[in-house]
Amino acid sequence: MTIEEKLVNLLMTKEYHISFAESCTGGMVCAQIVNVPNASKVLNSSFITYSNEAKMKWVHVDPDTLEKFGAVSEEVAKEMAIGAAKVSDSDIGVGITGIAGPAGGTKQKPVGMVCFGFKIKDNLYTYTKHFSDQSRNEVRKSSVDFVIKKLLELI
Amino acid sequence: MTIEEKLVNLLMTKEYHISFAESCTGGMVCAQIVNVPNASKVLNSSFITYSNEAKMKWVHVDPDTLEKFGAVSEEVAKEMAIGAAKVSDSDIGVGITGIAGPAGGTKQKPVGMVCFGFKIKDNLYTYTKHFSDQSRNEVRKSSVDFVIKKLLELI
Repeated sequence: MTIEEKLVNLLMTKEYHISFAESCTGGMVCAQIVNVPNASKVLNSSFITYSNEAKMKWVHVDPDTLEKFGAVSEEVAKEMAIGAAKVSDSDIGVGITGIAGPAGGTKQKPVGMVCFGFKIKDNLYTYTKHFSDQSRNEVRKSSVDFVIKKLLELI
Repeated sequence: MTIEEKLVNLLMTKEYHISFAESCTGGMVCAQIVNVPNASKVLNSSFITYSNEAKMKWVHVDPDTLEKFGAVSEEVAKEMAIGAAKVSDSDIGVGITGIAGPAGGTKQKPVGMVCFGFKIKDNLYTYTKHFSDQSRNEVRKSSVDFVIKKLLELI
């Protein structure tokens, strides 16, 4: 059984619904879940919020949070998770925002840095990972893998 | 150059933005576009509208259209495309709705049937494809491929 099959089974057992707000992964996490035949039992809506405007409009990230911490921050990832869960009436929300590269990196926020927010019922968790020396696509694949494994651990 | 790189370049040249409403592909099409480094110049928001409720809520599919033609129909795919473009203020909207299987097929709408809607500026196009004898994941990959090639043809 693949890890995404395990996750869908776990969500079904708990009768949980999940929703994502994806920035740098651009839909890859959700696509991985939808590849499991029973996905319709655990997922209704999910969002790709690539621009700052999209993060504010669709999953209600506070413009002040974006201004203060920047789009790639645990604070924004947390608000994306909260918003994704809220607007889709899901038990679990996940926010993913990072710098997949090849451009866009800075000394403080280098290419490969990805921030994650998880809202699981009433609990919030945030993480930052540095997928250094990876290509754009590898950073995104590592992010998908991290999200699915972390969800299996946290739920 | 990959076909998705060609598409992002074409969209950049025309200064077009694109948005998707994906059902059976679950974010795969958008993820393919976001894999191209300049994706942020052509994409702000995109939607995974897996349930009927999500299709109505996020991309404004008419409940009567869902009732009359069913979720997997060119009519619904067209409204998903129109809605995706409208709500994200994009020049191009694409709707994808199909039966990826392994369950859910009927005689009239067998597994592998996928309906596509394209709104490109003021023009609307719809298509139905039958990806027969393919696995769930193959149906979804064939759908992604069809969308990207068709966009290159239509724009």
